Amino acid sequence: MTPGPTNVPEEIRKKMAEDVIHHRMADYKKLFSDVSEDLKHFFKTKQEVLTLTCSGTGVMEAAVVNLFSKKEKVLIINTGNFGQRFVEIATTYDLNVIDLKYNWGSTYNLEDVKEIILTNPDLKGIFVTHSETSTGVLNNIQSIGFLTKNTDILLVVDSVSGMVVNPLEFDNWSIDCVIAGSQKGFLLPPGLAFVALSEKAKKAMERSNLPKFYFDLKKYIKFLKEKQESPYTPAITLVVGLKCACDLLLEEGLDSIQLKHTKLREYLGEELIKLGFKYFVKDEKARGNTLVAVTHTKIQDMDKFRAIIDKNGVSIAGGQGNYTGKLLRIGCLGKITKADIDRTIKEIKKNLI
Amino acid sequence: MTPGPTNVPEEIRKKMAEDVIHHRMADYKKLFSDVSEDLKHFFKTKQEVLTLTCSGTGVMEAAVVNLFSKKEKVLIINTGNFGQRFVEIATTYDLNVIDLKYNWGSTYNLEDVKEIILTNPDLKGIFVTHSETSTGVLNNIQSIGFLTKNTDILLVVDSVSGMVVNPLEFDNWSIDCVIAGSQKGFLLPPGLAFVALSEKAKKAMERSNLPKFYFDLKKYIKFLKEKQESPYTPAITLVVGLKCACDLLLEEGLDSIQLKHTKLREYLGEELIKLGFKYFVKDEKARGNTLVAVTHTKIQDMDKFRAIIDKNGVSIAGGQGNYTGKLLRIGCLGKITKADIDRTIKEIKKNLI
Repeated sequence: MTPGPTNVPEEIRKKMAEDVIHHRMADYKKLFSDVSEDLKHFFKTKQEVLTLTCSGTGVMEAAVVNLFSKKEKVLIINTGNFGQRFVEIATTYDLNVIDLKYNWGSTYNLEDVKEIILTNPDLKGIFVTHSETSTGVLNNIQSIGFLTKNTDILLVVDSVSGMVVNPLEFDNWSIDCVIAGSQKGFLLPPGLAFVALSEKAKKAMERSNLPKFYFDLKKYIKFLKEKQESPYTPAITLVVGLKCACDLLLEEGLDSIQLKHTKLREYLGEELIKLGFKYFVKDEKARGNTLVAVTHTKIQDMDKFRAIIDKNGVSIAGGQGNYTGKLLRIGCLGKITKADIDRTIKEIKKNLI
Repeated sequence: MTPGPTNVPEEIRKKMAEDVIHHRMADYKKLFSDVSEDLKHFFKTKQEVLTLTCSGTGVMEAAVVNLFSKKEKVLIINTGNFGQRFVEIATTYDLNVIDLKYNWGSTYNLEDVKEIILTNPDLKGIFVTHSETSTGVLNNIQSIGFLTKNTDILLVVDSVSGMVVNPLEFDNWSIDCVIAGSQKGFLLPPGLAFVALSEKAKKAMERSNLPKFYFDLKKYIKFLKEKQESPYTPAITLVVGLKCACDLLLEEGLDSIQLKHTKLREYLGEELIKLGFKYFVKDEKARGNTLVAVTHTKIQDMDKFRAIIDKNGVSIAGGQGNYTGKLLRIGCLGKITKADIDRTIKEIKKNLI
């Protein structure tokens, strides 16, 4: 019941336990080509989706080093731990960062973004976290896409924990780069990360002068198109699992998955409220399906509370950064059921008294 | 029968198919701490061994960006495809590269290295490939360690396909950085990579001014020491498999594994010679246990020949770069047996006529 890595269905785990195929042979090329096509349905894009072997942070870095150049001005909408990570990466690569920081638990204010675009004609990019795993906020991406659409500003979205269980439309929302990971909505163990790029983003890649090698996305595009391979040895077993996961998820359908997760998340939230918890995200419209984050005035140390529950077999996450010990973060990802939620609630209730 | 990724024993595959544990919880910390200790036995070092989620190329880049600074002079002993990759990475990061290039199939000449050290007092590092997978050459590492030992020059060794089946002694040979991967001697699928660093290397890391984030090794050292974790979500299932693989390999013992693979590789070579093949590596002392690379005057297109054999269920690798279509490269890695070799030889023999 953590907000990722998710539990992996047995079907997928068994598939990954089969004999390892070779990544430069025909069988793998077919698999990789098929799975790269499947991924387009999740991103809702006609662009190719690239698969890298690394964590979500790796592709966050890939977005920075491929799309921008030294000293270029970018806006980072910083609504939590993962917004902060974009600030750190962009600073490492000497970008000129406007750090638009909000209190944890809040989404961004669109008027602030409009104002910054207006007053910074040299702005080259906007980074935003779709689902902020550290707080449970789901930031509205479409509204920013309206602003960047007919400009030279690139819209870069971290949807590592956002995708699959929350709606995302790469092409329709005019996003230029989305990064995602295998271990959240995709029902897989961690180890793979994904990147989609718009035509505008690909043009920017031609100009970028930041150094990169393993994360050089041009090579991933070239290898996918020309050889149906990755430039460097991929995590083959995870790619095998990914095909299986895509089949399962697409069969269920993205719309019904998202509807199901909305219901489960709302149910979980309501049950927690009954026990005296308060939503950490006050604005109802800013709550995503990925997780529910809550506080409780009567629990002094949430991490101690979590440890007790963990001993009884229910793993949930705590607060990060300044909110260490102050939050419960309960995941609604993957193959979660109402029964899982009921068991979690029961365990929390038992230890609350 | 390719030179990696190796076949993965069923025992390890089953272990990886178990339920996914969470990477910030106590069970994982224990596992990661144990496996990090196990890895020291393979590297023969008292230093910590870091585990990253990426391919071997990722940690090649990590070695470059963590140990050096812009414009610093480094020697790259370039004996094949993977030596060339070091040249490309170091050039990407604007190091001053001395590219000491040898014909494919040859090892380096120690006198050349001595000469370069003598005439370049500002030399900061030497990069060398332990087992050059593109040719089958095993470069002597110890001889270079003697030269760099009491100097400020860092010795960086790519042992991605070298380790486990070939001897390597990090501490005794005065190596400063060894990088390795999960998918060769470690009996695992690809997706994990390893780095060991000497005290001298750690001091150099303090000076390095190259930009890095995902590959910033200081963070991996800090997280391993203080939290028994990785800074970013690791490929958990592969780490679980790694513990199982380490147990199996250490039980068998490195010495007996290496002896077994020497015998198997020699046997494979002799059988191929009987069929009219010639060793690509002429110098007997420069042949490693990782693979046997051979040519044949009567086979015009080795890749066509390979394709026929592949259809009958025996996968072997071909030449890379300028040697595309001109080589067979047959792996001796992993859980290979004499029976596997006999089957491969039989298949080759059948199609030779």
